[in-house]
Amino acid sequence: MIVRPRQPTETWSVRESTLDLDALAQTESVFALANGHLGLRGNLDEGEPAGLPGTYLNGFYEIRPLPYAEAGYGYPESGQTMINVTNGKLLRLLVDDEPFDVRYGRLGSHERVLDLRAGTLTRDVRWTSPAGQEARVRSVRLVSFTQRAVAAICYEVEAVGDRARVVIQSELVANEPMPGAASDPRVAAVLSAPLVSEDHGTHGLVAVRLAHRTAASGLRMAVAMSHTVDGPVPTDVTADSSADVGRVTFTTLLEPGQTLRVVKILGYGWSSLRSRQALVDQVVAAVSAAHQTGWQGLLDEQRRYLDAFWDRSAVEVDGDPEIEQAVRFALFHVLQAGARAEGRAIPAKGLTGSGYDGHAFWDTETFVLPVLTYTFPDAAADALRWRHSTLPVARRRAATLGFAGAAFPWRSIAGEECSGYWPAGTAAFHVNADVADAVVRYVDATGDVAFEQDVGHDVLVETARLWSSLGHHDRSGAFRIPGVTGPDEYSALADDNVYTNLMAQQNLLAAADVAERHPDRARALGVAAGEVAAWRRAAGAMFVPYDAELGVHPQSEGFTGYEVWNFDAAGPDNYPLFLHYPYFDIYRKQVVKQADLVLAMQVRPEAFTDEQKARNFDYYEALTVRDSSLSAATQAILAAEIGHLDLAYDYLAESALVDLHDLQGNAGIGLHLAALAGGWSALVAGFGGFRASGGSLRFAPRLPPALSRLLFHVSYRGRAVRVEVTAADVTYRIVTGDPIEVRHHGDPVLVTSVPVSRPVPALASRPPPTQPPGRAPARRSHRA
Amino acid sequence: MIVRPRQPTETWSVRESTLDLDALAQTESVFALANGHLGLRGNLDEGEPAGLPGTYLNGFYEIRPLPYAEAGYGYPESGQTMINVTNGKLLRLLVDDEPFDVRYGRLGSHERVLDLRAGTLTRDVRWTSPAGQEARVRSVRLVSFTQRAVAAICYEVEAVGDRARVVIQSELVANEPMPGAASDPRVAAVLSAPLVSEDHGTHGLVAVRLAHRTAASGLRMAVAMSHTVDGPVPTDVTADSSADVGRVTFTTLLEPGQTLRVVKILGYGWSSLRSRQALVDQVVAAVSAAHQTGWQGLLDEQRRYLDAFWDRSAVEVDGDPEIEQAVRFALFHVLQAGARAEGRAIPAKGLTGSGYDGHAFWDTETFVLPVLTYTFPDAAADALRWRHSTLPVARRRAATLGFAGAAFPWRSIAGEECSGYWPAGTAAFHVNADVADAVVRYVDATGDVAFEQDVGHDVLVETARLWSSLGHHDRSGAFRIPGVTGPDEYSALADDNVYTNLMAQQNLLAAADVAERHPDRARALGVAAGEVAAWRRAAGAMFVPYDAELGVHPQSEGFTGYEVWNFDAAGPDNYPLFLHYPYFDIYRKQVVKQADLVLAMQVRPEAFTDEQKARNFDYYEALTVRDSSLSAATQAILAAEIGHLDLAYDYLAESALVDLHDLQGNAGIGLHLAALAGGWSALVAGFGGFRASGGSLRFAPRLPPALSRLLFHVSYRGRAVRVEVTAADVTYRIVTGDPIEVRHHGDPVLVTSVPVSRPVPALASRPPPTQPPGRAPARRSHRA
Repeated sequence: MIVRPRQPTETWSVRESTLDLDALAQTESVFALANGHLGLRGNLDEGEPAGLPGTYLNGFYEIRPLPYAEAGYGYPESGQTMINVTNGKLLRLLVDDEPFDVRYGRLGSHERVLDLRAGTLTRDVRWTSPAGQEARVRSVRLVSFTQRAVAAICYEVEAVGDRARVVIQSELVANEPMPGAASDPRVAAVLSAPLVSEDHGTHGLVAVRLAHRTAASGLRMAVAMSHTVDGPVPTDVTADSSADVGRVTFTTLLEPGQTLRVVKILGYGWSSLRSRQALVDQVVAAVSAAHQTGWQGLLDEQRRYLDAFWDRSAVEVDGDPEIEQAVRFALFHVLQAGARAEGRAIPAKGLTGSGYDGHAFWDTETFVLPVLTYTFPDAAADALRWRHSTLPVARRRAATLGFAGAAFPWRSIAGEECSGYWPAGTAAFHVNADVADAVVRYVDATGDVAFEQDVGHDVLVETARLWSSLGHHDRSGAFRIPGVTGPDEYSALADDNVYTNLMAQQNLLAAADVAERHPDRARALGVAAGEVAAWRRAAGAMFVPYDAELGVHPQSEGFTGYEVWNFDAAGPDNYPLFLHYPYFDIYRKQVVKQADLVLAMQVRPEAFTDEQKARNFDYYEALTVRDSSLSAATQAILAAEIGHLDLAYDYLAESALVDLHDLQGNAGIGLHLAALAGGWSALVAGFGGFRASGGSLRFAPRLPPALSRLLFHVSYRGRAVRVEVTAADVTYRIVTGDPIEVRHHGDPVLVTSVPVSRPVPALASRPPPTQPPGRAPARRSHRA
Repeated sequence: MIVRPRQPTETWSVRESTLDLDALAQTESVFALANGHLGLRGNLDEGEPAGLPGTYLNGFYEIRPLPYAEAGYGYPESGQTMINVTNGKLLRLLVDDEPFDVRYGRLGSHERVLDLRAGTLTRDVRWTSPAGQEARVRSVRLVSFTQRAVAAICYEVEAVGDRARVVIQSELVANEPMPGAASDPRVAAVLSAPLVSEDHGTHGLVAVRLAHRTAASGLRMAVAMSHTVDGPVPTDVTADSSADVGRVTFTTLLEPGQTLRVVKILGYGWSSLRSRQALVDQVVAAVSAAHQTGWQGLLDEQRRYLDAFWDRSAVEVDGDPEIEQAVRFALFHVLQAGARAEGRAIPAKGLTGSGYDGHAFWDTETFVLPVLTYTFPDAAADALRWRHSTLPVARRRAATLGFAGAAFPWRSIAGEECSGYWPAGTAAFHVNADVADAVVRYVDATGDVAFEQDVGHDVLVETARLWSSLGHHDRSGAFRIPGVTGPDEYSALADDNVYTNLMAQQNLLAAADVAERHPDRARALGVAAGEVAAWRRAAGAMFVPYDAELGVHPQSEGFTGYEVWNFDAAGPDNYPLFLHYPYFDIYRKQVVKQADLVLAMQVRPEAFTDEQKARNFDYYEALTVRDSSLSAATQAILAAEIGHLDLAYDYLAESALVDLHDLQGNAGIGLHLAALAGGWSALVAGFGGFRASGGSLRFAPRLPPALSRLLFHVSYRGRAVRVEVTAADVTYRIVTGDPIEVRHHGDPVLVTSVPVSRPVPALASRPPPTQPPGRAPARRSHRA
C-alpha cells in the first residue's frame, strides 16, 4: 500500500512499502512515468501480474466505429482510441529456471518509490523462488524529460545465499493481451491487436527494433532498444526478433552477492507521414544518442530538469505533509503530461492510462493549463498550439453543424469529435470558450505577443464567430444562447447557462480586442469591422439569468424553479447518480454533478458581487453531489474566497488526494489529471487567493486553522513571485525578474526582490453551508 | 401507376393499370391485405421482382441488440423487430419451361385492383414468354376478416394462342432473402434468416406445413397450406417439404383457351406458449375449416363483413372523387390494421411493411383509435386491451426510471421500450396521457362500463400515478412537468409542454373520476383518498405557459423566445430538416416538425378561447414544416375550425393522399396509418366539426368551396349518426339507435330517425396564415 507521509522528507516521494495486488492498477497509474510524448504505466518489470498494461505515445490512436441504436445527423461515425503500443518496459527474469513472478514463491520485501525530484521509479525486491533460491531485484526506470523519445531502465539482479543461474529477457512486445472491456462507459474501449507489423530486426547482439502501423488510422510507430550489461564473465547475450516480439537475452551464473546489471535504453517514435525507414532510423538514432549520454547521464539530466521546475514552482504546506506530498505529486504528473507534448493534446488522464479512450476534454484548458501557465508556461503554449493545429477540423465541424467559425470537439485525440452522446458532448459548446479563456490567460501571464498573433488570434476569432452564430438577440435585444450544455453534466440542453454565457461574453470581447490589435491577421481571416462590432454588441447584451426571488443566479434559465432532487431517496449506494437514474430525470431536477455556476464565479469573478458569491455558493453547495472529480477544487477555491476555510481545506484534500486515495474508485484506468491540477489551484487560488488578469496580479491569502504556513510560487510575465503565507501575515518576494505591483486583499503592494509582508485581514465568520445528505466532503479539517 | 379516379365508381377501389417497377414497393404497401392478425404485402404472386417481401404476424418479432456509442442508465439493451415470416403468397408459374417473370418476355397488360368492398386484391396479366407463348394470369387474393388465421388465393392460368405446358409451384418459403438495410434510421433493421425450423411435412398431395421459431425471442409460428385444383386431365400434383420450403406442384398441358385454376388456402398462427404440435394442429385445422367454407364462401363472408362496416361508416365526398377514394382507402386500411388484432398492438404501419421495425407508437391511440372508436369501437377496445395487457411491463419501466405507476413505451411490439434515442423516446411521456385519452374517448363513445372497470380503470390510475410523480408543485403551487418531450419531434426535453400538461391534467382528472366510480377496483390497486385528492390538486394547479406579449401559447415554456429557424437558408433540398441539421440546433429554435400546440387545441378544445385558437394557429403555421406525416390532419382540423377552409382542404388532401401519392417518399416500407386515419378525421372533425366528450356530440360542419356535399357517419353509444353537409345546410339523422340531442354550431338539435336540417351559419372571413417558405401544402383548393 501507498504510505501516507509521516516525515517531511517523504513529501518528495510516493512510496509503496508492500505490494498490494488488489491495488495494482491504481499503483500502475500513480507510478506512471511520462514526458508528454511517451508514457509508461507503472507495470511491474516482468509484465505480470498487471492491472492494465500500458505504454502510450501521445497522439497515437486507432479508429473504432461509434454505433448508434438510432443514428442522427452530425453524429460522429467513428472515434479515436489511444492504444497500448509496443511494451518496451518488459524485463523478465528467470532464477534457476523459475520465472520471477510475485504471485509465486515468497516475497521477502517489495518496495516501489516514485521520486518527484529524481523523476524515477525505483523498485527494490527480495524474492525467494518456489525452489528456495533467494534473489534481490532492483530496478530504476525513467522516461526522459530531456531526450523526448527515450526511456531507460537500470535492472539489477543479485544472488542471495546461494549461487544462481540467472536469465534476463529484455523484451519489446506488441499487441499485448488486454483485460476485457468493462460495462462502465468510462472505461476505455479495448481494441485487441491493433498493431500490424511493418518491420523487425536485430542490430548486433544487444539491439532490437520493431515497427508497426495501425490498420484503420494508418499511423506508424517504431521502437528500438539497446542495452549495456555489467555482470560476471561469462554472461551470454543473444538477440532475436519476430513480428510482434523483440528480445535480448542475458544469461549468467551469479555467485552469492554477485550482481547482473542491465541498462535498457528505449527509443519510441510515431508519425502519420514519415516512411517506415525514416521512423526506424529516428528511434535507432534516439537510442544511440541516449547511449552516449549513458545511464548516469540520463539520471543527471533528469534531476537538473526537475530541479529547475521545482525551483520556480516549489510548494510547501506546513501542518499537513500528506497534502504537501499530494500537491507535489500532482504538479509532477501535470509536468509529466505536458512537458514535452509539443503540439499534441494533454489527455484527461495524461499518459497514465487508457481511461476515456485517451481523449482530451475541456479539462485541459480549464483545470490543467492554469497550473502550467503559472509554473511552466511553455508547456501551456504547446498545448494551445495543439488546439490551434486542429482549427481546420474544428472549422469543418462548425460547418457541419451549421455554424460559423470553429467548433472544437468535446473529446478527441487528433481534433475530430469523438463524442457518441451529443447532449453531453457536442452540445457542451463551452469547451470553445474554455480554449479561448486559456489563450487569454496564457497571453496575460506571459505577454507573449508572437503567440497571440500566430496562435491566439485565430483561436479567439474563430470561437467568437461560433458564439456569434450560436446565440441570438431576443425581442428585447438581449443576447441569448439557448439549448447548450454547461459544465455540470447533470443538466443538458439548457437555456442561457450562466457559465457558458459569461465565458462566451469574455470570448467575444477578447476576439474583438485581439482582432483590433492584429489588423493584418484579422484581415487575413476576413474579419470585417461590422463583425467585430457585432461581437461587442453581443457581449454587451449578454443575458445572465438571475432569480430575484431567491436572490441567486440559476445555473441556467429556469433552473431554480425545478424540483430539488430527492436526496433522501437516493441512498449512499446510488452514487454516482448517473449509474442509477436516467439522464432525463437528472437533467430536469435541481442536482449538480460538478461546479458550474460556482466555476463561473471562479473564472469570471468580476461578474458577481461578494454577496452574490456567498449566496450562490451556499445555494449550490446544497445541490452538488460531486459525482465528477472536476468539482472539489473549484468548490475549494470559492469556499476559500467566501471564508469557509475549513470546507475549502476539505475540498482541497478531496481534489489533491483523488488518486493517491483512489477516491473515485477508478484510478486504475489513469490519473485524474484535472483534479490533481485542481489540488494546486485549491492551494494557490484558494488559500492564496491568487487571481490574474489584464496584467494585474491579485492575492488574498488566508489559511485554514490546520495549516501553519503555505509557500507557493507563480510565474508571471517573466517573474517568479514567491508568496509565503502564515495565519498572521503574508510575505511577497520576487525570486527572478522585475518588481511588480500586486494587490494584497485589494490593497496595492510593490513586490521586489526584498521580502515585503502584509497582515492577513480579519475574517467575518459565516455559518458553513450544507451539502446533500452523505455528500459532505471528508472532514479533514477536524482530524484528530 | 395508380390511377386517380375519374368516375365515381372508381372511388370504391384502387386500380393500377400498368406495372411500374419503380413504384413496386409503394404498390406492395398500398395493395397489402391484412386483418390485424395476418398481413400480406401486395407482392407479386411469383415473388420476384419485389420491392420488399413481406408476410407479417401481428406480435411476432425477433430481438436485436440496441448499440450505443456511450451507454446510459435505463437505455433498452435490445429492441423488438417485426420479422418477415414464412411467405405463403408464392405461386410460381412456368410456361413451357419459361418462368413467368414480368421483367422478361412481353407484358401485354398488367392490372391490379384493390377492391375496398370485396376486400380482395385482383390481378389480371397478359404475358408473352421470351419464347413467344402467350398466357393470361388472373389471381384474386384475400386475407379473411371472418377466419382470422386464413388467407386464400385463387390463381388461374389460361393458354392463349398456342398449347402450353404449364407448371404452378405453390410454395411456403421461410427466411426469404431481404434487401439490405438502408442508412435512413426509419427503415427497419433487416434481420437475416431469423427463423429456425422446428417441423415440416406434407399431408397427402396438396397440403404442406412448416413450423419455425425465432432464435432470441423464442416465439413459435406455423403455417399450413392446402389446395383445390381445377384443370385439364391429367393435371399432376406433387407435394414436398424441407426445413424452409414447402411446395405443391401442379403440372398440366393447356390447350388454347383452357385454364388451370388453383385455390390456395393458407393458415397462419403463432404463440409464445403453445407447443409445436398444438400450433401445427391449429393452423392445419384453420385450413380445414376454410376449405369447408370454400373459395366462394370466403369471398361471400368477406363482402358481408365489409358491407356491415361500410354501412355504419360510409363516407361520400361530392366534388372530389380522389379524396373520396383516398378516405375510403384510409378507412379500409385502418380496418385491416385493427379488425382482428384482438389484444395485439396496431403498429404505425399496420401489417403493410416493416418500417419502424413494426412498432406501435402513440400514433395508434391519438390518430388511429379515434377513427375506430367512432366507426368500429370493438377494434378500439381490442387495441386498448393490448395496452392494458402490457401494464406489468409498463410498471416495471416506471420503476426502472424512478417513477410511480406505469410508463408505456415510446415504441414497442410486446410492451418493452424499444427506443434507442431517449430524448425523442422515453422522454416523450405524453404517450401515457394519449393512451389515457383513448380510454376516456372509447368509454365516452360506447358507455362500456365493463371495459372501464376491467381495462380503463387500471390504465387511468397507473398513468395518473406516473404524472403525479413526473411533475411537481413549484414555489407558487403551480404543477409543472419539466424536461419532457411533446409531440413535436423538433423540440425535446422542454419544460411545461402545453400539450403534455393539458393531457396530463385530463389524465389526472379522469383517473380521479374513475377511481371514485369503481372504489373496489381502486382499492385493489391501493388507491388512497389522499392520492385521488393529490391528482385533483395537481390537475387544478396545472401550469400552462402563455406569452402575453405575443398573445400566443408557447409550445413549451420559453419557446416563443427562441430564435426562429432560418427557413430562407434551408432550401427545398434540406427537408426533412433532421437529415440535414443536428438535433441540438433544431431543438433550440422555433421550428416545428408536427402539430403540437395545434394538436393540444384539437384534443383539449375547451382549454383555449376562439381568439387564442386563431392566433395560436396562425403563429404555428409560420413555424411548422410538416417533416412528419402526423401533422397535416391536425392542421386541417384546426384550420377548418378557425375558418381557413381552403387551407384545411389542402391539408386534408396531404394527409389522405400520403401513400397513394407517396408524399413522404417512403410508402414502400409501409403505409402511414396515422396519416391515413387523419384523412378521415380531417373530413369528420375538420369539415364536419365533430367533437365528442362527456356524453355530448357536437358538430360544426362547414365545407370548403371545392366540395359540394359531404356525408359521414359516426357511431356513438349504440347509435349510428348520419351527417350530410352541403354548403347551405346540414341534415342529421339516426340510422340505428335512439334519438340524441347534439349541438349544431353550438345550438341544440334533437336528432332522430327523421332527418332534421339546420343552416350552416355565415363565416367571417379571415386572412389566411402563411407557412415557412416552400412548405405550404399543395394548393388543392385552387386546382383547375
